Amino acid sequence: VRRRVRGMLARPEFRLPPPEQSLSDQRALTSRWLQLVADEGIGAIAFPREYGGQDDWPGFIAAFETIAQHDISLAIKFTVHFGLWTACLTLLGNEEQARRYLPGAADLSLPGCFALTEIGHGSNARELETTATYDPAAGGFLLHSPHFDAGKNYIGNAARDGRVAAVFAQLVTQGRNHGVHAFAVPIRDEMGNVLPGIRIEDNGPKMGENGVDNARLWFDGVRLPRHALLNRLGGVTADGTYASPLASANARFFATISALVGGRIAIAAAAIGASKVGLLIAVRYARRRRQFRAPGAREETPLLDYPTHQRRLLPPLAELYAVHFAHQHLVHRRATVAAGTVDAAAAREVELLAGGIKAWASWHCTRTLQACREACGGEGYLSVNRLPALKADSDIFTTFEGDNTVLMLWIGRHLLAEAERSTPAADPLPDDEPGRWEALFADRVRTMLTGASGRGQGALFRAAGAHLEAVLLARFNAALAAVTDPALVEPLAALRDLFALCRLEEGRGWFLEHGRLEPAEARGLPGRVDALCARLAPLAPALVEAFGLSEASIAAPIAPPA
Amino acid sequence: VRRRVRGMLARPEFRLPPPEQSLSDQRALTSRWLQLVADEGIGAIAFPREYGGQDDWPGFIAAFETIAQHDISLAIKFTVHFGLWTACLTLLGNEEQARRYLPGAADLSLPGCFALTEIGHGSNARELETTATYDPAAGGFLLHSPHFDAGKNYIGNAARDGRVAAVFAQLVTQGRNHGVHAFAVPIRDEMGNVLPGIRIEDNGPKMGENGVDNARLWFDGVRLPRHALLNRLGGVTADGTYASPLASANARFFATISALVGGRIAIAAAAIGASKVGLLIAVRYARRRRQFRAPGAREETPLLDYPTHQRRLLPPLAELYAVHFAHQHLVHRRATVAAGTVDAAAAREVELLAGGIKAWASWHCTRTLQACREACGGEGYLSVNRLPALKADSDIFTTFEGDNTVLMLWIGRHLLAEAERSTPAADPLPDDEPGRWEALFADRVRTMLTGASGRGQGALFRAAGAHLEAVLLARFNAALAAVTDPALVEPLAALRDLFALCRLEEGRGWFLEHGRLEPAEARGLPGRVDALCARLAPLAPALVEAFGLSEASIAAPIAPPA
Repeated sequence: VRRRVRGMLARPEFRLPPPEQSLSDQRALTSRWLQLVADEGIGAIAFPREYGGQDDWPGFIAAFETIAQHDISLAIKFTVHFGLWTACLTLLGNEEQARRYLPGAADLSLPGCFALTEIGHGSNARELETTATYDPAAGGFLLHSPHFDAGKNYIGNAARDGRVAAVFAQLVTQGRNHGVHAFAVPIRDEMGNVLPGIRIEDNGPKMGENGVDNARLWFDGVRLPRHALLNRLGGVTADGTYASPLASANARFFATISALVGGRIAIAAAAIGASKVGLLIAVRYARRRRQFRAPGAREETPLLDYPTHQRRLLPPLAELYAVHFAHQHLVHRRATVAAGTVDAAAAREVELLAGGIKAWASWHCTRTLQACREACGGEGYLSVNRLPALKADSDIFTTFEGDNTVLMLWIGRHLLAEAERSTPAADPLPDDEPGRWEALFADRVRTMLTGASGRGQGALFRAAGAHLEAVLLARFNAALAAVTDPALVEPLAALRDLFALCRLEEGRGWFLEHGRLEPAEARGLPGRVDALCARLAPLAPALVEAFGLSEASIAAPIAPPA
Repeated sequence: VRRRVRGMLARPEFRLPPPEQSLSDQRALTSRWLQLVADEGIGAIAFPREYGGQDDWPGFIAAFETIAQHDISLAIKFTVHFGLWTACLTLLGNEEQARRYLPGAADLSLPGCFALTEIGHGSNARELETTATYDPAAGGFLLHSPHFDAGKNYIGNAARDGRVAAVFAQLVTQGRNHGVHAFAVPIRDEMGNVLPGIRIEDNGPKMGENGVDNARLWFDGVRLPRHALLNRLGGVTADGTYASPLASANARFFATISALVGGRIAIAAAAIGASKVGLLIAVRYARRRRQFRAPGAREETPLLDYPTHQRRLLPPLAELYAVHFAHQHLVHRRATVAAGTVDAAAAREVELLAGGIKAWASWHCTRTLQACREACGGEGYLSVNRLPALKADSDIFTTFEGDNTVLMLWIGRHLLAEAERSTPAADPLPDDEPGRWEALFADRVRTMLTGASGRGQGALFRAAGAHLEAVLLARFNAALAAVTDPALVEPLAALRDLFALCRLEEGRGWFLEHGRLEPAEARGLPGRVDALCARLAPLAPALVEAFGLSEASIAAPIAPPA
């Protein structure tokens, strides 16, 4: 899939435009590109086979990451329509709704939006204020935004192109609120005119992603037929009687917003993709760019040979490999769980992992692109060298599809509840160093949670971070165990070591104060990390070229191919 | 000065434009604004009195920070012309050159540039490749860029407006290279036409600061009169004999680029100014914005009441106060040293402090504005709310006027050389906690340097960071000691405590592994920081309003005045 998408993006019509483009030009170009992607059949890869798709969700994520490496605006518009809007149909809708909407989704003749977030309620989606009140006399719903803050906000595809939206609203029938449900709501006619009762206000220029047309939406008593309700998780009979296969309102809410799980996995993929491009550019530049002459040397020294420069680029590169492996695991776990019988525990595990990897990958991306920009000096600040757009476009990843801090607290609370149910005994420390690191990281989470009850948000937040470090190291070890090519084992093992040693170095305060690390070993960590960076630096060019990016998507004059 | 500049910026002609502006519109507006600033006499505040100035360099820095809070492009164009270009005349030029150029600098009738950096040589300015070869027959210099990489790069004010530039070149006479010297070089005529032999290439769109017209410049054997050389540090007689009051080529080089010292102090001021605006916006938003309802509560909880949100905003705020106080000290030290007799040791101390504070303030700014953007969620991503421009415009501060990492290594090497000359005995630990922290931080630097010889760049980089933490804490304590209003002592002392505890928390690995901190005390640090954040959160609004920013410069719809 990656090869196929790269081939498409290398075509002349996908050539990246010069940096200075007006908002409307950027949006128009992104729309044209999205139509070309749809025409290639790439958007529908994850669609059910009966609707022309290939039921290939991992392929969809691979396509998405590859598109994000080329242009993040296009990737986001792609996932709003082919990911979020379509997932609402397949996860929440019924057969008839799939037949009605999927063909127009596949060929993009009916562009869709995902309208969950409101001006007043972002993270707290459960209390959103749009209402869909059932009227038995009319046999349908009345969709309404009771006040300004109940307007939908930042809705991608809504300012310019969207014709239909999955709108999340409190379902009220027979005088009772049954919580948040999704409705398929037409918002524009075939000519692109906004439909009566709907008000759309452009969100205007943003820090980045200006190819995505975000908007606010308000509904003023818009009448919807009864079949507009995506009713797999809860429906209303003609007389207004509500029925749901899920008894718990809590379970229903999480199932209703489950499209976000796939969305989070997609955002993590985009973050990983952007980090790959950034590190490739920075490493190529660091290898070529020389500055300062060693005593007696004929040529100046390449930046990549400086210990401080290695410290800027190698640790983020090692962490990127860790995040990449964990994300690959997540994609396959999600595909397995979705294909299997419904197992609530497994589904929950995937949800938590998706939230955690999304948070970690997006924070990693923000930090990494910052390091790359600085490592490229003034050149990194010029738009022509791609880093400005990569940074600006990816900056929102830490916020959307769930604010990272809110996600971390959700994971922390879940870990605490688990720990309170049962505290597993600590495993004995293995003899080999990687095994010992993995055990140390796992033990840290257990220890933090043992004392965490009542120690507040701060402690839960830190426990969630420790948990994710343990997960990343375990996934790196698992990926490494599956590598058979001996030429790959050594560099990947060194990267794994660098990842683990960097996390130990940064977290050594905790390990020391809890007697898990001896002062002598801790004192040696900064020097060991420096030495490992120096050992890996000559391999850095190969380690970034291994991402297999196409030159059409790199397109930075400071980073020509070697 | 701040009040006067704020009054000017609140005038309708300085109203911030809507975010989506073309490059040429942004540049035109910035130029118009700069002329208005010059007309107000604000640019010339630091000029000598005999040229219509007020000899008030601290006032110039205060004006600069205030302008940066309003628009960073304007501030940079302001400091390129009134700071760097003018400083070359006053620091390096003679009386006749001051008479020739300062009047046109003061009223902006002759806009100036500072042309040091080259395409091939940024950090390593000593090896820049532009040559100025003296020709006794013609009685002047031949200014030449021998190849593409010898072109000047990122030269502010050069793409559009500059008419004259301080050009740094290797001075060659009688077949010998005497190192880098500065020349006053006309680059455009009165009509704005580029002069013969000069090629100017626009640097094009950048991540930010698009109101500043940066360009590359090449010289093709441009003839300059002998008096074009700014000759205070080294001159050439009519027959080509070179003479300099400074015997050491090294001392001459540092004196030649000494305008950068003031430049670094200015950049630090801009970073501090941008951080103030960002934190003001984020704190106002956190106080107003509510999300999630505590059990039984009528209203949702303000973001500022959440421990994780306090952790995002309060530590950067405490550090901002620390950086602000250290910077104020630096400005006054620099003014004192500049006014006094030449004391090489004092001048060196100011240079090192300027480099360090510039690096710390700019990294702090980048991290802080990132935290502010994330803390404002999707609203923080919308251009209308100012944070995108603040982030993008300030991002280059970590690079220009000296790459931060290069500056840190320079400081580290200097500290090491000092330590090798004499290792002062460790002071006994004072009884009071703030005094003990200060002693702990100072001891850490000493201890790091004792073992640092031969431990490479990594160790020197870390020692420089530890040194700056010690300086910041010492300056915070000194500032606090000077506060007499009892109502201010308590909140400022709490901020100082938060700054110190955060640095201890982050650095506790080192203190533990070197036996400077007991595990029990270290274990308590995260909880103490959480608790102090909670205690300071209700004061946060007052602590950001204390910056006294004008609403015309805040101008973010998410952050209206309370």
